[in-house]
Amino acid sequence: MTPSFNTPSDDKSVLEEGTELSPRFDSNGLVTAVVADSRDNEVLMLAFMNEEALRLTIDTGIAHYWSRSRSALWKKGETSGNLQMVDEIRLDCDQDAVLLKVRVSGSDATCHTGRRSCFYRKVVKTEGETRLETDSAPLFDPKSVYTDH
Amino acid sequence: MTPSFNTPSDDKSVLEEGTELSPRFDSNGLVTAVVADSRDNEVLMLAFMNEEALRLTIDTGIAHYWSRSRSALWKKGETSGNLQMVDEIRLDCDQDAVLLKVRVSGSDATCHTGRRSCFYRKVVKTEGETRLETDSAPLFDPKSVYTDH
Repeated sequence: MTPSFNTPSDDKSVLEEGTELSPRFDSNGLVTAVVADSRDNEVLMLAFMNEEALRLTIDTGIAHYWSRSRSALWKKGETSGNLQMVDEIRLDCDQDAVLLKVRVSGSDATCHTGRRSCFYRKVVKTEGETRLETDSAPLFDPKSVYTDH
Repeated sequence: MTPSFNTPSDDKSVLEEGTELSPRFDSNGLVTAVVADSRDNEVLMLAFMNEEALRLTIDTGIAHYWSRSRSALWKKGETSGNLQMVDEIRLDCDQDAVLLKVRVSGSDATCHTGRRSCFYRKVVKTEGETRLETDSAPLFDPKSVYTDH
């Protein structure tokens, strides 16, 4: 049985300046994970990890998350082949968020729409109107990959 | 009165592929915001925005958040001088997360500990032990800046 994580300290200086990994899982048992590409730091996605997902990610070097929609452990890329190989894991100051720097296998795509990043639309303001503009194209065809959706 | 945002569509293809900005605020009225430096994409912090914070950020070009600990609108950097000037705002596929690309004023520091990024500690494994290692130093002295904390 893989050991669980340390209990977060009540002492803010220990939590923020210490060397002890003590993730602050929320009331649902989750921390937020930001995922960025190791090559250029581009943010690829946002996801959630429970204790098991974080432990598996640390132990295997392959990103695992907790799927809130499916209520299941989620080895990212298991269906699409776009696995995330983890180069670095970082914790934020109060240890309730994780930053993963990854290299993506397969089509180099992270988003289920087939695009490299989930953040493929930017906010633009024109003539007083605020709208979204897509500026990247799918790298794979989701319909041919996610056949059970 | 600034107009509110559009209601998110039930049609997934409209939500994910459309041009309509319709953020999916959660049951607490919040979306998650990932904040990255425009210069090199380095992830600086994670925060939350309610409708007012997102609207103010879009309208003013200066990052505003919702402080969950203080239950108050939070103009980031108002105390420290480390304001975040927003170059780009992006929405993720299902519109429940926002990515801001910013330039930080003042000391170029985002974390309340005085460091550039909140993610100043990485996970290291040595001799079977997993611990955190800090690899950046404060750019300002938090004690002299946050005198009311």
